[in-house]
Amino acid sequence: MDRHLPDGGLALACLAEHMLQPGVKGLPLTEPMRQGAIPLQRWNVLRGDTSYPVALLKETALLHNLDWMRRFCARYGAVLAPHGKTTMSPQLFGAQLANGAWGMTLATAAQVQVAYRFGVRRVLLANQLVAPADIRAMLALMKDDPGFEFYALVDSGEGVQRLSRAAAAAGLERPLPLLVELGLAGKRAGCRSQAEAMAVAQEVARVPGLQLAGIEGYEGLLHSHDRAGSVEAVRAFVAELAALVRQADEQKLFGGDKILLSAGGSAYFDLVAHGFAGMKNLSRPVLPVLRSGCYLTNDHGSYQDLTQDVTEREHASGGLQPALEVWSMVTSRPEPTLAILSMGKRDASYDMELPIALYTHRPAQELSAEPATLPTALPTDLPPGCRIEKMNDQHAYLRLPEGDALCQELKVGDLIGCGISHPCTTFDKWPLLLVVDDAYTVRYAVNTFF
Amino acid sequence: MDRHLPDGGLALACLAEHMLQPGVKGLPLTEPMRQGAIPLQRWNVLRGDTSYPVALLKETALLHNLDWMRRFCARYGAVLAPHGKTTMSPQLFGAQLANGAWGMTLATAAQVQVAYRFGVRRVLLANQLVAPADIRAMLALMKDDPGFEFYALVDSGEGVQRLSRAAAAAGLERPLPLLVELGLAGKRAGCRSQAEAMAVAQEVARVPGLQLAGIEGYEGLLHSHDRAGSVEAVRAFVAELAALVRQADEQKLFGGDKILLSAGGSAYFDLVAHGFAGMKNLSRPVLPVLRSGCYLTNDHGSYQDLTQDVTEREHASGGLQPALEVWSMVTSRPEPTLAILSMGKRDASYDMELPIALYTHRPAQELSAEPATLPTALPTDLPPGCRIEKMNDQHAYLRLPEGDALCQELKVGDLIGCGISHPCTTFDKWPLLLVVDDAYTVRYAVNTFF
Repeated sequence: MDRHLPDGGLALACLAEHMLQPGVKGLPLTEPMRQGAIPLQRWNVLRGDTSYPVALLKETALLHNLDWMRRFCARYGAVLAPHGKTTMSPQLFGAQLANGAWGMTLATAAQVQVAYRFGVRRVLLANQLVAPADIRAMLALMKDDPGFEFYALVDSGEGVQRLSRAAAAAGLERPLPLLVELGLAGKRAGCRSQAEAMAVAQEVARVPGLQLAGIEGYEGLLHSHDRAGSVEAVRAFVAELAALVRQADEQKLFGGDKILLSAGGSAYFDLVAHGFAGMKNLSRPVLPVLRSGCYLTNDHGSYQDLTQDVTEREHASGGLQPALEVWSMVTSRPEPTLAILSMGKRDASYDMELPIALYTHRPAQELSAEPATLPTALPTDLPPGCRIEKMNDQHAYLRLPEGDALCQELKVGDLIGCGISHPCTTFDKWPLLLVVDDAYTVRYAVNTFF
Repeated sequence: MDRHLPDGGLALACLAEHMLQPGVKGLPLTEPMRQGAIPLQRWNVLRGDTSYPVALLKETALLHNLDWMRRFCARYGAVLAPHGKTTMSPQLFGAQLANGAWGMTLATAAQVQVAYRFGVRRVLLANQLVAPADIRAMLALMKDDPGFEFYALVDSGEGVQRLSRAAAAAGLERPLPLLVELGLAGKRAGCRSQAEAMAVAQEVARVPGLQLAGIEGYEGLLHSHDRAGSVEAVRAFVAELAALVRQADEQKLFGGDKILLSAGGSAYFDLVAHGFAGMKNLSRPVLPVLRSGCYLTNDHGSYQDLTQDVTEREHASGGLQPALEVWSMVTSRPEPTLAILSMGKRDASYDMELPIALYTHRPAQELSAEPATLPTALPTDLPPGCRIEKMNDQHAYLRLPEGDALCQELKVGDLIGCGISHPCTTFDKWPLLLVVDDAYTVRYAVNTFF
């Protein structure tokens, strides 16, 4: 782990000792290399030192976003359990925890096991645990390590019964803390009414081995093209979650020393924080837990749009910055307005939008035995009209506007820097991402475990 | 490596020694386990033994497809260099080579390095090598290992010059063999005319350090909804490739002891094999090299459709069989016609079609300390109208037809087996897939390296 991205006390030294074999995407290796030796190489992406495609994280933007979110949560008295499924990167988990995150949110038992392995000791599993193997694995962690704080969701009597039986079978000495999930009609998991949620909450409080720790919902699914309507719907849903907390507290269903109240993906966490702030006069303190995963890297597409709305609603002067770029090389220039890039569906998100072509750069020297001097120029902005119009598994089609001088001169071997839309579906395509400084010199690497 | 999927002499024993950590998707681990110990566990997927989602390969279908393609190639006098980018699995590469594959096709230098590391010694890189780091890596393999047979594509003078300079800089003692790529107007890489291709071929033959080894094209991009029109266009393109071979041979441009003539993705390899068969009266023998990658697992969607056309055109009695399934669990049952599954964009292809819901099964016992007896029933077919209508990163929405008794009874904890459409974009979501017998008992695992 690098000294500049603090690891929150996580035991990540093992990854510095990790031996990288030739064939790791993006790395210019001909021999195995200790991951800890990457900073010594001083690879520069604009100089053409790496392999392409290569996935980059801009350290300045990461640090900015970490700080931005820490300050945001402090302002509202909320805590952050960032959704780790976005990056599944232990080093980034470490940076988030070191910057004030309360714990990590994760989506599956396997993801929890990865996080635990690298030192995460407080987890909110944002799903109902169902598979016997998954339940056993989570209860084993709780049993083996009294310091492991674990919360999961539940939305049905069937789910409650399975967990209660499993807790008994595992001989767990402390109760399994659960949050009842309130859902949305026509959307994903979660109880469809306050009455249904209350029934599940009552059952959690009643059966042995479990404890009602809080109430949870996910407002991100309310995203629609009607922005004002979405905001209104989110506010109403957040109010419903808060009402459910009051109702369950009146019925004395909560256990533990606080009540967790959790919502807040990457699009509306400001509305959630606002709606959850200042809940008083309950049997115990309420802890609002936000769960944004994409704040850390943001993007140049959908999430940039969504978080710009947050910035506007907050009247903040500066918002989150995009930190994730995928750089590829022009491998063929078969037609005047077409360049084929060494990047495809295996390398960049395509589920919300195709990658966004941002920059180009021509490496000054190639194939020289001596390392060239560092590029003195930053990459050049591509003109409007340059866009990725299609991707195959391993190729992208960059369409160039007619008559633009820069584009006419674009040639085989030139670099293209793309932003992406939806960090989650780019991270899962890279076992290793390179963290770069503002001049695109590689500082160190972070791993992912998908 | 398992004894039933022969490894073609590849050095794969190292993967049996690979230590799997808790957190590998699909595996029910609470402690690290040697990969070689998986067969001893006798996990059964229908019994609920694994974690879910889990990606499965049906061994019977794999063996059928391996044999089918071996016999197909023999019939036409073609050889197979299956596209390894589909699976990126060393064990599956080994099975392909053991079943008569001539070599492996790969898409990137990093993929070649992975294949080489696990013993593949004949590679067709189906792209132009451009990045200095990638060129250096490939030439280093050629230089270090005289037994490594490596071919790459080229489609421009710029590409030829880069490679010629690099071969000189590397001090390579044997020429780098190249195939000139013929492309298609408006499509991907490749020269856009016979004249352009001939000019590149002449340059390859002229410059030092390179050798013209053959001609290549990729007909798969001609796929359209007009099936008859697509077939006609493929036949014409295949004829163009053959004509280019004759023209280059007349000009004595080829080096080496044979002429490679390569095309053939997974949709039209029969048309390619037919068009390439029986080329005679050239300066040296022509070796038709097919490159299908998806034949090995086929699928329940696009590739099944495409290869059924092949079967019909070949008047064959039986075609390729779908071997790849992703099984997930119902984690929530929030509305009468909606089930939420523990599978999402991280687990199954969504680029061509969403996963195809095929089967359901209710594990007989759950959470029992003793392993239950093996299920006696095979999974039940889901009724028509059951379909995955949406996926998020970690969830799928299974829409159920109204009024169907089986669907009404579907509950939390039930298993759902899905076929997929497009093997490449499912393999890249799984570091490890489980090979099962016909009763869904896990026999062993194969790894992927993306």
